[in-house]
Amino acid sequence: MNSRRSGPPPAGKSPAPAASPWKASHERQRDREVKRDAVIRAAAREFNRKGYHNTSLDDIAARLEVTKPTVYYYVTSKEQLLFQCFVAGVERIRAAFRDLRRSQLPARERLNAVLRHYGEAVASEFGWCMVRAEEQDLSPAMSRHIKALKSEIDHGIRRLIREGIQDGSIQPCDPKMTAFALAGALNWIAHWYREDQSLTGAQIAAAFVTVFEGGLRPRANGAQLAAPRRRTRRAAGTLAR
Amino acid sequence: MNSRRSGPPPAGKSPAPAASPWKASHERQRDREVKRDAVIRAAAREFNRKGYHNTSLDDIAARLEVTKPTVYYYVTSKEQLLFQCFVAGVERIRAAFRDLRRSQLPARERLNAVLRHYGEAVASEFGWCMVRAEEQDLSPAMSRHIKALKSEIDHGIRRLIREGIQDGSIQPCDPKMTAFALAGALNWIAHWYREDQSLTGAQIAAAFVTVFEGGLRPRANGAQLAAPRRRTRRAAGTLAR
Repeated sequence: MNSRRSGPPPAGKSPAPAASPWKASHERQRDREVKRDAVIRAAAREFNRKGYHNTSLDDIAARLEVTKPTVYYYVTSKEQLLFQCFVAGVERIRAAFRDLRRSQLPARERLNAVLRHYGEAVASEFGWCMVRAEEQDLSPAMSRHIKALKSEIDHGIRRLIREGIQDGSIQPCDPKMTAFALAGALNWIAHWYREDQSLTGAQIAAAFVTVFEGGLRPRANGAQLAAPRRRTRRAAGTLAR
Repeated sequence: MNSRRSGPPPAGKSPAPAASPWKASHERQRDREVKRDAVIRAAAREFNRKGYHNTSLDDIAARLEVTKPTVYYYVTSKEQLLFQCFVAGVERIRAAFRDLRRSQLPARERLNAVLRHYGEAVASEFGWCMVRAEEQDLSPAMSRHIKALKSEIDHGIRRLIREGIQDGSIQPCDPKMTAFALAGALNWIAHWYREDQSLTGAQIAAAFVTVFEGGLRPRANGAQLAAPRRRTRRAAGTLAR
């Protein structure tokens, strides 16, 4: 219990009204949110580290140094916890869509902004849950929820691609296949990226957007295919290293 | 037992030398390879359908309508079987690298050929094993084997990107991040593609290579960003569909 009074009441005066030993309602609400957030983050890290089925609520409680009932105070089940981890990740992408709703930027720039947030989310502690939640033998209702959120994001990306084709900021392409390729590349980050690597999630995301922008097109200065490559064992060997 | 004699020996003549009721050595070898291939394909389909840990050698034997010892005749363990499924998939990519070793094509075209084979392999029945084998609590030796083969392919792709930057067929980029983005997009095909879909694996692979080639660059005819998009609820709604 933290009192919001600092120091004893001044001597010789009537004491100030005693501060309540209970937190104010808005403080309790905030406190609860901070703690719930800590539970979800701890769960995301454990699921990522050990897999969903190998992680128990006891593990998560131990990680937070609280009891299992404390964890249950914030979530009703392990499945619910996985879903909340999933939502915490995709919420970053949904927020990017919302923030850009009224933007006048060309669609390609809006798409790039979404893709950067997408990449950062997948490189975050929630990445594993974002890309693997659906495979974990969840209840039909939970699966539907997850599918619906994934579909919303997929269709949001396709819509931005179509808008880009329309406003000329993206060359004509198949919006569905392009969306699958972009999302696949980003989702795969969760398979190889670890927080202790030299690049941050934001740097990885930015690097990927650069790849998407550039594609595999030839160098712009017309030097393309200047001469057939000379094949010597030495040159090939050097390149291989 | 199939005899290679057709019909009885001609009457009144000394019988032709009796054909062996056993198959010739090269036939037995071929027969064994065909059956081993069938075991590996059946296993790949079961692993894909039910996951590695939920699939037993009994399941695979049942699927082939043979006994479990028959399966053991072709592979020594379930882990070995998963590894063979992994190898069957990545072998298609390795073969593409080998076939292109002496090619004089610009590196971008060689890379595209490898990526097409890569996409087709991931969209095949071996796709699941290719992208999920490593997660299945394998023995350290098996994990090392798989990691080494994956690394060989990753470095092969990076090498082609570097060669493309050198011969001008690919614009300067970060070879590692580009390789990760390309391979990630292709690996992710295993998560969503099913053989009964309208596009074949080859069509998916070709579509992805088109995306990689094109990137998200603006339309070529200079019409880029002609006018700020007009935002009406109706237009946005239409695009969203």
